[in-house]
Amino acid sequence: MTKNLEISTLLDYYGMLLTDKQRETVEYYYNDDLSLGEIAENTGISRQGVRDSIKRSEAILFEAEEKLGLIKKSAVLKSGLAEIRRNIDIIDEKNMKIYRSNAVNESIKVILKELEKLDEII
Amino acid sequence: MTKNLEISTLLDYYGMLLTDKQRETVEYYYNDDLSLGEIAENTGISRQGVRDSIKRSEAILFEAEEKLGLIKKSAVLKSGLAEIRRNIDIIDEKNMKIYRSNAVNESIKVILKELEKLDEII
Repeated sequence: MTKNLEISTLLDYYGMLLTDKQRETVEYYYNDDLSLGEIAENTGISRQGVRDSIKRSEAILFEAEEKLGLIKKSAVLKSGLAEIRRNIDIIDEKNMKIYRSNAVNESIKVILKELEKLDEII
Repeated sequence: MTKNLEISTLLDYYGMLLTDKQRETVEYYYNDDLSLGEIAENTGISRQGVRDSIKRSEAILFEAEEKLGLIKKSAVLKSGLAEIRRNIDIIDEKNMKIYRSNAVNESIKVILKELEKLDEII
């Protein structure tokens, strides 16, 4: 994982903890790949001010993950849901090929829909 | 939900965002039900200092939920996992009573174990 990707992920999870101005400078820098000079021009902050804002924002983002661990937690949740999904597929195949139960089929459908919904919010 | 329960839940999710001193005063007040005077005595902070610390902590906790929404998200995850669980139970009953497939049984076991693991971390 490159530094850029890492900060982008941190922004996804903790961007709301930054002030609008902080978020703006970090997004310009990491998501839009602008230079400090370009960001200074866009925001009307000095080049040094932009650099300070980005450093401060990075510190807030890393500290948030250290304290709340949402990214780590999300990875565990994702892998758990994937494992459930794999096993539902096994049951689904058995049911389609051998048992052909409508009740089982209905339950599998509900579970797959739930898994999709959960995958979206974690 | 009483105020106490709400703060206790916020503490579970965002307690790490408080300083040690802030967390101590809030836990004494909401989890241990001590009076401001008792907390002042235990911590060596003035009664007014304890009151300020609790007010400030409450603000941090409510703001964190407003910004990150982990408690709301967790409720959605819990209800999704419960729905999956209900449907796994339906499949399990069908399988035990009618199909008696070992492969399906194995997959159900794995899924139930994963559900339990996920329930613990959300």
